[in-house]
Amino acid sequence: MEYCCIEASHVADLGRMVEPGRFSCGESSCDLHSRDQSSHKACRPRMVIWPLCQEEVSRILFYADEHVIPVTAWGMGSSLEGNPIPVSGGIVLNFSTMNRIIRVRDEDFQADLEPGVIYQNLNETLRHRGLFFPPDPGARATIGGMIGNNASGSRTVRYGATKDHVMRLKVVLAGGEIMELGTRASKSSSGYDLLHLFVGSEGTLGIVVEATLRLSAIPSEFSAAIASFDSAASAAGAVFEIRRAGLDPIALEFLSIECMELVAREMGIALKVSPTLFMEFAGASAGYLKDVVDTAGEICRENGCLDYESGIGRDRRDRMFKARHSLGETIVRNHPDRKVMTTDVAVPISRFPSMIAFAEQESAATGLPRYMFSHAGDGNIHLVLLGKKEDEAEGCIVEEINRKIVLKAIEMGGTATGEHGVGIGKRCFMEKEHGTSLGWMKRIKGLFDPKGILNPGKIFP
Amino acid sequence: MEYCCIEASHVADLGRMVEPGRFSCGESSCDLHSRDQSSHKACRPRMVIWPLCQEEVSRILFYADEHVIPVTAWGMGSSLEGNPIPVSGGIVLNFSTMNRIIRVRDEDFQADLEPGVIYQNLNETLRHRGLFFPPDPGARATIGGMIGNNASGSRTVRYGATKDHVMRLKVVLAGGEIMELGTRASKSSSGYDLLHLFVGSEGTLGIVVEATLRLSAIPSEFSAAIASFDSAASAAGAVFEIRRAGLDPIALEFLSIECMELVAREMGIALKVSPTLFMEFAGASAGYLKDVVDTAGEICRENGCLDYESGIGRDRRDRMFKARHSLGETIVRNHPDRKVMTTDVAVPISRFPSMIAFAEQESAATGLPRYMFSHAGDGNIHLVLLGKKEDEAEGCIVEEINRKIVLKAIEMGGTATGEHGVGIGKRCFMEKEHGTSLGWMKRIKGLFDPKGILNPGKIFP
Repeated sequence: MEYCCIEASHVADLGRMVEPGRFSCGESSCDLHSRDQSSHKACRPRMVIWPLCQEEVSRILFYADEHVIPVTAWGMGSSLEGNPIPVSGGIVLNFSTMNRIIRVRDEDFQADLEPGVIYQNLNETLRHRGLFFPPDPGARATIGGMIGNNASGSRTVRYGATKDHVMRLKVVLAGGEIMELGTRASKSSSGYDLLHLFVGSEGTLGIVVEATLRLSAIPSEFSAAIASFDSAASAAGAVFEIRRAGLDPIALEFLSIECMELVAREMGIALKVSPTLFMEFAGASAGYLKDVVDTAGEICRENGCLDYESGIGRDRRDRMFKARHSLGETIVRNHPDRKVMTTDVAVPISRFPSMIAFAEQESAATGLPRYMFSHAGDGNIHLVLLGKKEDEAEGCIVEEINRKIVLKAIEMGGTATGEHGVGIGKRCFMEKEHGTSLGWMKRIKGLFDPKGILNPGKIFP
Repeated sequence: MEYCCIEASHVADLGRMVEPGRFSCGESSCDLHSRDQSSHKACRPRMVIWPLCQEEVSRILFYADEHVIPVTAWGMGSSLEGNPIPVSGGIVLNFSTMNRIIRVRDEDFQADLEPGVIYQNLNETLRHRGLFFPPDPGARATIGGMIGNNASGSRTVRYGATKDHVMRLKVVLAGGEIMELGTRASKSSSGYDLLHLFVGSEGTLGIVVEATLRLSAIPSEFSAAIASFDSAASAAGAVFEIRRAGLDPIALEFLSIECMELVAREMGIALKVSPTLFMEFAGASAGYLKDVVDTAGEICRENGCLDYESGIGRDRRDRMFKARHSLGETIVRNHPDRKVMTTDVAVPISRFPSMIAFAEQESAATGLPRYMFSHAGDGNIHLVLLGKKEDEAEGCIVEEINRKIVLKAIEMGGTATGEHGVGIGKRCFMEKEHGTSLGWMKRIKGLFDPKGILNPGKIFP
């Protein structure tokens, strides 16, 4: 694509569209919007705009489309595949200024939100109403970013991904048109499902300015358990059996021995350092939950579990979740001289044990520091492999392992990305995963954004 | 659209594409494929073809596209909005010959199917494996038809609609291209969601030739209850409260007094003849279910319930479901001189009581025979209104009531069609419901099917 060479007049025109405090061409602003939490190469935008309403977004997109200026939407910059890096420069729209919880409709289990709402803040607001928005990516993320990436996390095994919770969207298209999609009814067979075309499209088809999310009731009873295994293979086998038995956990997480060592040391949680499953169940009756947790325990023991700790209290559970959620950061902090690469494949659950074995074997052979953790109940695996910064040879080894794991996952009927999105890092696998349908994705991109101004350089090889 | 004037040479060409027994231009074949179960005007195709494999479908579509001949896919003809009526003639593809259960992957809770599989047959096969495909439209429907219409039914309140169970599709596009969509992994953030664009598109974008469905485990315990109310309004109020309490029924059905009268008389089931909720709960523990059913009973009594019968055995439950599923047919049989019109709106659950009241009031004022039943837990309402056949004035009254109810539902944030699809009957409401996004749906139709050969005359006004 040929983009506009942005001149002073363009900057002045765009600057006049919002109040002075919400526009910046400053170096530090542009720097702050040049990278996400991945190791993908930073790239500065030419300017950052903090819009306040859909009309402003519409006016900016109209102008940008007319003058062929790239526009990339920005939530918290917490993504992991370079998804919001403005690789062609242009405008970054930072949505932190559009962060209103417009209305919580308890009576319909719905909330209307602006895209800049942070999901932890939403759940804090909803808590005393007995409701929550379940997808739980861990990082501090905005609703807009979660919709863009179809984010998911620890709760997805029971409650689904972001896409399963989006009922209605208001999006601004490349030319500035504001379009509404979806319905507030809990089901519909009316027309084409354009809504889900936009969820997970990483801001390349349009920019979300309002969303209605489906909420869930907070269960009245919880019960957590920690199972320590003799090997990763045993733990993976237990995951498959727990899913097969239909026990329906609300979290089923795997942590490798390296992760457990880190968690025990860094978080000061007394834990057995071995491959571990952390699981949680929820329901309306404590007695029923006890049965479920006991059954899970039996399955674990039949699969090489060395130690099964159930009846875990809220405090210990919360600390475990916190440790799990901050693993990424903890790893970075513990290896300041190394570059982080995180795989994000997902495979059908029957292939989960083989995938874990494959990732173990391939990564062990490198001799590099490594950590493996997984939303195991969904067959979603993250392997963190750490090559020394500026060491090209180690960088190549890491890349090669990632490539092998992704290709293996696709071969198993799985996907190159379970939850991080394609961004920059997974583009090269799209043809392999999607075959001829990738061409149709491109044609749809061309239909909605013929000049290619929306988040260029993402998704497509 | 200008379609080809089909000549003998076209018929001969197409006839040569399949074995003799799987092609027909005969009057009775064409008659049998001229109408579904709605009252929409019948229209014959020029020929019917029974394909055996995706390659045949591909060859037929390639030819049809080249010669601009309409092609309409056919499952069982059980739809209710004229969805498969070949209004522009041409070819009907009857998929009853592509009805193989290709593979059940118990280990992944998945099944690979051809589109002609009848869902009751699928569930019969799955039963002894402890699995089932939950969407339950009642009528004998094929998987292909269910995907085309995004069908749903009594189990949707807990398990979702067809769209929530489709993981992978193989579709043949207008020009004959065979395209695969989706993944076998239980979650993915890889590329645009084209899969859900095809689910519910009523065969207007492409024709499904293979599908992978996500299956659910059959719960070990069930418990059903029947609650009789003093009025439809009270029953509707109880529905809202049951949902709000998070009791999570697997069925929550409303039947009006007229339906109950019919069920009691026709099916010989001893029942109180009054507005009724039929509900079912499921789980892994009988004790837990008893608590849930008791709580539902309390809610019902607080909302004007006259009689609450719980602990219903399997036999009585099955008879109730059978009666509910055959209501449509029973109504037709009881009114041979009348034309059936069935509304199919869905509204947010908080608006369900007002919607029931509105439908009650509007339909009562006509003095015509009427029946109201509802997948109440989803806010999905069917009002059957019966005008005399050939009586134009009564026909107009019926149409007007349908129009009013649909507009009211849209005004309430709901949808013109909860589960029957747009077909012919709901086209006129699409602009009202979808606004400017309808234009984008049309553009997507134009992208995939530029000559408009696939199921013409449906969805778009």
